This record gives sequence, C-alpha cells and structure tokens, in this order.
Amino acid sequence: MSEFTERHGIAPCLAAVLAGDDPASHAYVASKAKAAGRVGIRSETFALPADVPAAEYFDLIDTLNRRADVHGILPQLPLPPQIAADAVFARLNPEKDVDGLTPVNMGRLALGRPGIVPCTPLGIIALIDSAGVSPAGGPPGGGLAGHHDLIAGREAVVVGRSNIVGKPVALLLLARHATVTICHSRTPDLAAQTRRADILVAAVGHPHLIRAAMVKPGAVVIDVGLTRVDGKIAGDVDFDAVREVAGAITPMPGGTGPMTIAMVLENTLTAARRQLEHDEA
Amino acid sequence: MSEFTERHGIAPCLAAVLAGDDPASHAYVASKAKAAGRVGIRSETFALPADVPAAEYFDLIDTLNRRADVHGILPQLPLPPQIAADAVFARLNPEKDVDGLTPVNMGRLALGRPGIVPCTPLGIIALIDSAGVSPAGGPPGGGLAGHHDLIAGREAVVVGRSNIVGKPVALLLLARHATVTICHSRTPDLAAQTRRADILVAAVGHPHLIRAAMVKPGAVVIDVGLTRVDGKIAGDVDFDAVREVAGAITPMPGGTGPMTIAMVLENTLTAARRQLEHDEA
Repeated sequence: MSEFTERHGIAPCLAAVLAGDDPASHAYVASKAKAAGRVGIRSETFALPADVPAAEYFDLIDTLNRRADVHGILPQLPLPPQIAADAVFARLNPEKDVDGLTPVNMGRLALGRPGIVPCTPLGIIALIDSAGVSPAGGPPGGGLAGHHDLIAGREAVVVGRSNIVGKPVALLLLARHATVTICHSRTPDLAAQTRRADILVAAVGHPHLIRAAMVKPGAVVIDVGLTRVDGKIAGDVDFDAVREVAGAITPMPGGTGPMTIAMVLENTLTAARRQLEHDEA
Repeated sequence: MSEFTERHGIAPCLAAVLAGDDPASHAYVASKAKAAGRVGIRSETFALPADVPAAEYFDLIDTLNRRADVHGILPQLPLPPQIAADAVFARLNPEKDVDGLTPVNMGRLALGRPGIVPCTPLGIIALIDSAGVSPAGGPPGGGLAGHHDLIAGREAVVVGRSNIVGKPVALLLLARHATVTICHSRTPDLAAQTRRADILVAAVGHPHLIRAAMVKPGAVVIDVGLTRVDGKIAGDVDFDAVREVAGAITPMPGGTGPMTIAMVLENTLTAARRQLEHDEA
C-alpha cells in the first residue's frame, strides 16, 4: 500500500455508506474501517438516518461516484425500505463497486472476464487455495512445499444461490475448472448432492444444516452461513462433527468473515489502481 | 407485431452486422431476416469486408446505437481477428443487445433480474416447458390438458460452459428452481453426472458425445451441439439411440436452431417495447 501511496501521492480511499441503525452493519463497517487504517487505506463513513429520503441517498452515491479521491464505495446492506438495492447498484460506478455487485461486474464475472469480484467469494477461493498449500515434508510422497490445485477437475457443491455468495462463488469455481453444482431450498435430496463434493460451500443461513453424514471424507468445507441462535453465532455447518470427516474446514465465526474484510481492502486497492492507471493512459 | 406497429407508427427493426465471408454466418443472418419479415419485423443487414478496420466497425455500432429507428443490433459472430468481441459487446447499447451478451445483460441475468436474455438459452427453456404441456387426456391421472413444471425441483445437468449457451442456460434453470450442475472438458466422469439429469442440455460441439447409457430414462434431452461431420450436421447427442431412453428429445438440426431464431425476434420486440415505453415515460 505504501508503494501505491508513494507512486500516486494519494492513499486508496474506501467510502462506506450506512443508512439506519442496524448494529451488525455498524459493527461491520467499523471493522472494515479499522482494518483499512492498519494497511494504509483511508476510509470515510457516511451514516445516514433510517428515514433518509431516497433522493438524498442517491445524491450521496452520485457525489462519491464523481469524487476522484474516493476509489471504492460500499453501500452497506441491508437498506431501509424506501431505497431499492437494485437502483443503488444500477447507479453505482462499476469501477468503484468494491463489493462487485453491480450488473456490469456480475456480468464480467459470468462472462469469464472478471472486473471487480464480490469479496466473500474471492475470500472463499483464497481459503480453498490455502488448503492446497503444503508445508515442506507435509504432503505424502513430496518432500518439498508445494501448491496443489484443489479446484480444477474437482467436484464442487455450493449450497445457496444468493447474489452475494452462492452464484458468484459458483462462477469462480467454474472458471477454475471445477464441476459445479448449485443447490438450494428446492433441492429434494440435499445430502445426496453434498456427499459428492470435494469442495462444499454452505451459504444459506440455516444453522448446522450440514451434518457429518452429508460430507465426503477429506472434503474441503467452507462455512459462510451466519445466524444468531440464543445470542451466539451459528454457522451452516455442524463444525464439531464435520471437522472429524472433512480434510479442511473453516470455523464460523473466524473463517470467511475475516477473509471478506481482507478482500474488501484488496478490491479497494485494485479499484484505485484501475482508476489511476486509466487516468494516466 | 401489427399491434405494436399500429400503436407506435413504426415496425420493430433488427440490424445485423456481418464482417467477412463466413457462409454459415451469412446463411444464419439471411434466415433471421427472412423470419423477421414473416412476422412484420423490419431488418437491415450490414455486410462488411473481412478486413474492415476496427474503427470503421465500431463507428457502425455507434451509429446503430444512436439510431432511434433501430431497436435491436446483432453483431454476428465469429468476428475477424482485428475486431475483439469483448470490445464490441462493451460498446453495444445493452438496450439493443438482442443476443443478451453485453456484460450488463449477463449481469442482470446472473443477479436474477433479467434484462435481455441470450436467445439460445431462452429457446431451450421454452422447449423444456413445451415438453411439460400435455394434450387433453394425455397425462396419467389427468383428464384435462395441463402445464407441468418440468424444471422446479428437478436435477438439471448442463454439459458445456460457454458464454452463449452453457452459463446463461444454467442461470435460467437455477432461477426456475432446478438443482443445476455444470460439466465441461475437465469433468472427470461425465457419465456419472449426466445419468443424474432429469434435464440434460448438451452444448459442447462434440459429435455424439451423449450416448444412451449416459441418459436417465425419461429425461428431457436438449441438443445444442452443432458440428459438421463429412458435410452433414451432427449434434452432441446420439439421437437415434438416446431417443429410446429419453422422455423428450430435440433433434439436431431442427430443434434448438429454429427456437433461437424465434427468440431473436422476440427479443427484438421486447427491446423495441422497452425503448419506446422508456421514450414515452
């Protein structure tokens, strides 16, 4: 980051836009801002009241779209009912869309020519790749540290078809040459699907949906679900039982969440580079 | 169509842009123009030489983007090497993109808020739906004609991950609540995947790849492959053998091809409606 700041005379800048008082959203934005500060990314947070008129919210997006010193914009979800998320993402400059949720960025991803890619799916791919990195002496038959591609040619099953996680992570896994199945609430026999998975991504928000008997021995299991049960955070995976079967598994909390924040920062840097290089061209 | 023309005082108009002498492309554009004429859609064809400078090609796209009397634009593929398809689709007005291949339209599809959807995938969905329509007295247990949803809750397997067919049809099937698997050249055991399929879409261009033993009895089989073998057109499906196993099957040629042309015309009408309604608003 300091290399970027020295070269361009300006730090990458991430602007978060909050509307309303949702404590989880405020906590999430605060943790992004704190992480940004640690790596030299400047951040601005705009906290609007829950009853902000839509026109005022859109004016702020327009202003941030225009400001040359703002490189990334995060319209924090959920939005209050008077502001349609579709309209926000249709209006957001795709070059500043660090969540990768504008139609243009989603289309680039689907077409296999990614622009800015959604953060949680990017983090999931990084986590799977990290499971393929063996320390020296680790892998059977190999004395040297190595990178094993755990995605190409493998069977990946994604449970959940959200725009933020399920669909984009499926497209990323497909681009990395996995055979990809997408399951959801209308899948009749979920266990039959998940048991085939070398890579299992659970992203539905159904506490402990994935039991040990649904997991193929040795699979890489990524838990993206996040539900509050009796004040505690529960994932989609029955962690204690599944860890006995899985080859690698992420905990919830503490797995995909921190990776998502890291990827927001990486996307901000990517966006800033694209904007300043484009300006120079 | 005549209703549209009466209301707006103008016929929907489709402009096709050809570059080079590929006989299949010329034949395809001619058949689209002929079909357009039959239903009252005006068409214009621009045939450019294979060595057309890229700047000239893009100028034509810009002109057609601006012309209010042109509602749909078809940049016919393949393009000569000096013209990058990505650049063409980045430049094309998404509202006139009747092939649905611009990033914005692909993104809208991935996000579950379709704008203009690629023609062949749209035609495939219509073909599957048509297999679910029973004539009176036809379906077991039912005396009346009925529509059976053959997609929701079913297992769909798409073989091929192209931008034009594989990925968009997978997204459409997912939006219609199928459990969807996407296979490709890196899938280790293709038959194990295809045998699970209630709906099997083959779109790879590998003659007779899909054999009878790879098909679940009663499955709906859609053949999108098109390869010329000894001067004859061959599909991806071994039709004569698979028809004995499948519940419904499309031939090649004569199956998805005519549906694609019908959908180009439907997309042109949709695009014209969107443009003229938008103008009125």
